[in-house]
Amino acid sequence: MYSKHILEEMIVRVLARLGVPETDGQITADVLLSAELRNIPSHGLIRFPDYVRLIETGRINPVPSIGILRETISTAVVDGDSGLGMVVAVKSMQTAIEKAKHAGTGWVAVKNSNHYGIAGYYSMMALKHDMAGISMTNANPLVAPTFSQDRLLGTNPVSIAIPAGKQPPFVADMATASMARGKLHIKQINNERVKYGYVQDAEGNPSDDPGVLVKGGAILPLGSSYEYGSHKGYCMAATVDIFSALFSGAGFGPFVPPSVAYLEPPLEEQGKGTGHFFGALRIDAFQSKTEFRQKMDKWIETFRNSKPTKENDMVLIPGDPEREAETANKNKPISIDDRLAEQIRGICKKYSVSFQ
Amino acid sequence: MYSKHILEEMIVRVLARLGVPETDGQITADVLLSAELRNIPSHGLIRFPDYVRLIETGRINPVPSIGILRETISTAVVDGDSGLGMVVAVKSMQTAIEKAKHAGTGWVAVKNSNHYGIAGYYSMMALKHDMAGISMTNANPLVAPTFSQDRLLGTNPVSIAIPAGKQPPFVADMATASMARGKLHIKQINNERVKYGYVQDAEGNPSDDPGVLVKGGAILPLGSSYEYGSHKGYCMAATVDIFSALFSGAGFGPFVPPSVAYLEPPLEEQGKGTGHFFGALRIDAFQSKTEFRQKMDKWIETFRNSKPTKENDMVLIPGDPEREAETANKNKPISIDDRLAEQIRGICKKYSVSFQ
Repeated sequence: MYSKHILEEMIVRVLARLGVPETDGQITADVLLSAELRNIPSHGLIRFPDYVRLIETGRINPVPSIGILRETISTAVVDGDSGLGMVVAVKSMQTAIEKAKHAGTGWVAVKNSNHYGIAGYYSMMALKHDMAGISMTNANPLVAPTFSQDRLLGTNPVSIAIPAGKQPPFVADMATASMARGKLHIKQINNERVKYGYVQDAEGNPSDDPGVLVKGGAILPLGSSYEYGSHKGYCMAATVDIFSALFSGAGFGPFVPPSVAYLEPPLEEQGKGTGHFFGALRIDAFQSKTEFRQKMDKWIETFRNSKPTKENDMVLIPGDPEREAETANKNKPISIDDRLAEQIRGICKKYSVSFQ
Repeated sequence: MYSKHILEEMIVRVLARLGVPETDGQITADVLLSAELRNIPSHGLIRFPDYVRLIETGRINPVPSIGILRETISTAVVDGDSGLGMVVAVKSMQTAIEKAKHAGTGWVAVKNSNHYGIAGYYSMMALKHDMAGISMTNANPLVAPTFSQDRLLGTNPVSIAIPAGKQPPFVADMATASMARGKLHIKQINNERVKYGYVQDAEGNPSDDPGVLVKGGAILPLGSSYEYGSHKGYCMAATVDIFSALFSGAGFGPFVPPSVAYLEPPLEEQGKGTGHFFGALRIDAFQSKTEFRQKMDKWIETFRNSKPTKENDMVLIPGDPEREAETANKNKPISIDDRLAEQIRGICKKYSVSFQ
């Protein structure tokens, strides 16, 4: 168990030794620890050793020159110069917000970035500006399109954050695959099988083996099978890929580089690095702020107060579970499993950063 | 079997007798017949008798004053004045395209509209302007959110159209529910059961009864169950509802009026009519047109040429089935089932429009 403050300082100091400016280290720490607080540990500290290795091997640039390549009143294309995904994403979302202040909406496509953690961190940046926020990213290929044996898409998440009034905001944050890679990994470690409908084997047959990814298998899109609409999950993942990569010039589909150092980037290069896409929509471009907030409250109350099915206590609003976790975890120390703690201690020793 | 031309003329003439200007009738006919050609008959001619009844009962306004209520450089809010959904939607998408010409992107939220047919008709309008197009609409409540007994959302479709070069465009057009209402209806007529995972009964229990909707049951969101990600389908349907209704001032969730005359509008009014949301993104706001088109070709070829699973011939690109149907059906007469033909003959007789 470690306090948030100790972990934050550790991240900033280790990254500083690797040449990352302190403000950029702070951003990285904040996004990673926000994932921990929101109970999404698959996108939290567990990623930190990977980022360190990617900087060490020169695949993440600790001092990127993040710049705009092309722009219009409501759009920009950002080159992340291979920087830490969090640093590139925060700057890009800020650009979308600035654009929206003038044009009503702002839309930023990003190339040459890296793994950016939880999508919801960036969509939620819009909320305090009285804006709705959108955030999406492509990722290295683990998902097979409907009817395909090959892995061509990442778990490509989308997040949409919409402000309310007295009610907390609506925050959807979801992968477009039927199961997250992290959950699959936990099943594998525990030597459990998974139900059918999450993965396929290397020939595209239905499988219950959570270890299928290292054997050439694939995760299925949301919907699980064509019969139940996996072509819709495929459409969503494909849309995220095209908006993130084709609009920006990033690597697309099978050409997105892996976000871990032990896997080599694809031999054929199509575009640069990982791609993201961000949007910001000013509420008062559409409705008076007051009226919109009142209506969102009414929307949220209508859904939350609807009749739950027998097995459930209440109908949830997107963002409820993560926000409740964040509130509950706010002043608690963060628990890290032994293996990760060991890895972090090793990194700290290597870079002479104190961490007990 | 009727030629496209004969059906088109019939629609325009009947609507003219009801006071709809000829150009608006043409738009309505074009959208309905486009659904027939694209093999989406659930959104085609079968809707025409409903539109007629809704005009007759004063719930669709044949001569709407469609106007902009609020705007910024990149956005507009349109009041459809209760007009035919197709007419309101075409004008609104044109506004989004005009906005995009100046601002890079254009975004239009629409209130006080009606059933607009296939979402893909409007997203595809962007293609000939070298733009990507987005179209979505809310609809009367048939879908229960995850954990809910109550029907609070429509099958809320989204369509995304993206231009390519030598390849035909990418056109996703999908409901966010696990099954379309039309398909359920066909199973019911044929006295068949459906597999579990599409509907729930009035208490929220899993059901295999396709007639569940008239007994207080509901369609399940894409994903079918919480275990397989129905909360993601719920997030998508909710996002479509909020963008279509809260940004525009239309009826939301359970307050969206039905698109058939035999069901009364909800007693409690929240917002006006059905809501839509449209987007247009200028390709050259992000990349040179030539480069973007080349890359989209490469994207499409990569996916189409990937290895299919044993049971399938090839991996499809979103839009392939509908486009192939459209090509195959282009010069063929359109077949209408006897019951619908009978209804149409009745309408034509009533309005003294010749139709054999």
